Amino acid sequence: MHHPQTASREKLAQAAFDIIARVRGRGPRVHCITNTVAQNFTANGLLAAGCMPSMTLSPEEIGPFVAGAQALLVNLGTFDSERRAATGIAVETAAQHKLPWVLDPVFVDRAPPRAAFARELIGRRPAVIRLNHAEFSALAGVAPSRDAAMTFTRANRVVVALSGETDLVTDGERIVSVANGHPLMAKVTAMGCAGSALVAACLAVEPDILGATVAALVFIGVAGEVAAEKSGGPGSFAAAVVDALYNLDGPTITARARIS
Amino acid sequence: MHHPQTASREKLAQAAFDIIARVRGRGPRVHCITNTVAQNFTANGLLAAGCMPSMTLSPEEIGPFVAGAQALLVNLGTFDSERRAATGIAVETAAQHKLPWVLDPVFVDRAPPRAAFARELIGRRPAVIRLNHAEFSALAGVAPSRDAAMTFTRANRVVVALSGETDLVTDGERIVSVANGHPLMAKVTAMGCAGSALVAACLAVEPDILGATVAALVFIGVAGEVAAEKSGGPGSFAAAVVDALYNLDGPTITARARIS
Amino acid sequence: MHHPQTASREKLAQAAFDIIARVRGRGPRVHCITNTVAQNFTANGLLAAGCMPSMTLSPEEIGPFVAGAQALLVNLGTFDSERRAATGIAVETAAQHKLPWVLDPVFVDRAPPRAAFARELIGRRPAVIRLNHAEFSALAGVAPSRDAAMTFTRANRVVVALSGETDLVTDGERIVSVANGHPLMAKVTAMGCAGSALVAACLAVEPDILGATVAALVFIGVAGEVAAEKSGGPGSFAAAVVDALYNLDGPTITARARIS
Repeated sequence: MHHPQTASREKLAQAAFDIIARVRGRGPRVHCITNTVAQNFTANGLLAAGCMPSMTLSPEEIGPFVAGAQALLVNLGTFDSERRAATGIAVETAAQHKLPWVLDPVFVDRAPPRAAFARELIGRRPAVIRLNHAEFSALAGVAPSRDAAMTFTRANRVVVALSGETDLVTDGERIVSVANGHPLMAKVTAMGCAGSALVAACLAVEPDILGATVAALVFIGVAGEVAAEKSGGPGSFAAAVVDALYNLDGPTITARARIS
Repeated sequence: MHHPQTASREKLAQAAFDIIARVRGRGPRVHCITNTVAQNFTANGLLAAGCMPSMTLSPEEIGPFVAGAQALLVNLGTFDSERRAATGIAVETAAQHKLPWVLDPVFVDRAPPRAAFARELIGRRPAVIRLNHAEFSALAGVAPSRDAAMTFTRANRVVVALSGETDLVTDGERIVSVANGHPLMAKVTAMGCAGSALVAACLAVEPDILGATVAALVFIGVAGEVAAEKSGGPGSFAAAVVDALYNLDGPTITARARIS
Repeated sequence: MHHPQTASREKLAQAAFDIIARVRGRGPRVHCITNTVAQNFTANGLLAAGCMPSMTLSPEEIGPFVAGAQALLVNLGTFDSERRAATGIAVETAAQHKLPWVLDPVFVDRAPPRAAFARELIGRRPAVIRLNHAEFSALAGVAPSRDAAMTFTRANRVVVALSGETDLVTDGERIVSVANGHPLMAKVTAMGCAGSALVAACLAVEPDILGATVAALVFIGVAGEVAAEKSGGPGSFAAAVVDALYNLDGPTITARARIS
């Protein structure tokens, strides 16, 4: 006998896995503007998920690279004038080619110029903005909550993925929580950035932005759970997450997905 | 009883291992101009192989660093004006000091300015150019084949190492195929770059350019095969490749080398 | 029955572990100016040790990032005009906020402009300078020895941590040797940089500069020993060192610490 809520969870989990399977089948190219600390792990996470990463940051080349990609990640982890110029070109190119893009406004709570730049980028219509509680507070001007996230989403016409012990994803009408993941994920640099890159990958194959975002968060979260069972600390865990992104099968993902 | 072809394979395999043993014994310094995604894995691959990597990209310093090295790798994975300036100085310094260098023209098929820069660099006489089929087509203007590779080699007086399921290496007179490797190698970023760095390392200890290139491709290919047997996905595989570069012994390399 | 020297070793080992435990408990933020090769491993080493790394190099932002940190690492592994500008701002900010900082003058023996810049930085009062024998010779103008290190320390009012098979740490009055570590540590890029970052982390929680430095060297050295027992080569070793930094307990550290 299925409890109605269980049935709903199973349906959501199956929908998430369908998107992940499509990522693996199609292998979208995801162009990543991200910091030098995160580039290697992000590229390996995308490769393990079946995608093709590209990472050039040169303002001279980023236009053609984004034009030929299927999705874009903009991570503000490094912030200098060259990177800002490259970001402007990349976002412009994404708009021209109707590519979905994800904004990861890292550390906007720590430096006001970043917050200003992030606000400008939000005005240029990312599909998704993924951020933690401190970053949300810095950008929204209010403490994070379900209501605050929905208000921010509606005001900015962007899907918000608010990271925390439980992640919240809202498109202003629906709100979904994803409770997958493991504490070791916070002990590996670039884990969040790799998650945001997977959001971009899912957007490349799924037009429902909220659904694509949920699928990516389930994917990286379940990978973290499975990896934690096989590793002896954050060093072996980082490699095990990449292994899990490569290996996770449908039954494992759908059984473990904690979506509601 | 030895089949003549087997005897030839064994001789080629032994010659390859002799070069690898010389790399380990002499520990050449290999200066690498490579992208930030690839730097860490490339450095660790070189260290595992017994070499000393150096990676500075600053135009102010790269001259002395290359002058004191035994070989140079130029990877076009990042392409900006500072990197181009550093590359010019590095290649000039290599010529002055008669150091062998390897050109890895990453993604020249994706951006015309890179292809133009790669053509200019080929005119400055790398010992080896290592590239995949798409990159070959972009530079040579024809589809890759044994004949096309030999023609390109003769026209440009450069040994060509054409990557594929089977790698081809030609100096315009001889053509050798290396069939080592594992599909997981394509799932780890910088694996190709690390292979090109090993080509540079072998050039540092072996004057026969074709022989040095074959040795490096056998080395990374066998490391990939052994690593795949010990790993559970691309994350643990990446670490296992580095372990294998450090551990592989002569009998394993010569038994597994698929050279013809 | 305790031999007096054993008792002294145990006391020193316990003092070292007390500092490590404080690092884990307080989780200081350590800002790192380091090269792109080393950033990822350094960040993961700090995270495993319970710290919060930050790595931005942008001259526009580094001031606020350092101001909010508890310690600073300056590694000269990359050397260009932007990095020099960022370093100047970072060191100035550290002085204003009375933050301890560590100088790791990588490769000053290979390029005279680096040595000149390192000398200028020593004049700006790092708490600790950590360097190997070749780097010491380049900066001090004499071969390294216990006496030379003490003389250099007194002349420059900086604690010197001289790396070698046995590390020496001196504040000009006391001199302590730390004999922990494993040869595989030299086969992983950024291992030294991660060690220097841990020195900065210990300085964040311990006012006795010599004691903090000794604690960090014991920490990374014992992690290397434990990791070597669990790994099959430098690739798996690198991950195992990170695991060990996360897992090492007091009895293991104090039993293995080789301080005298």
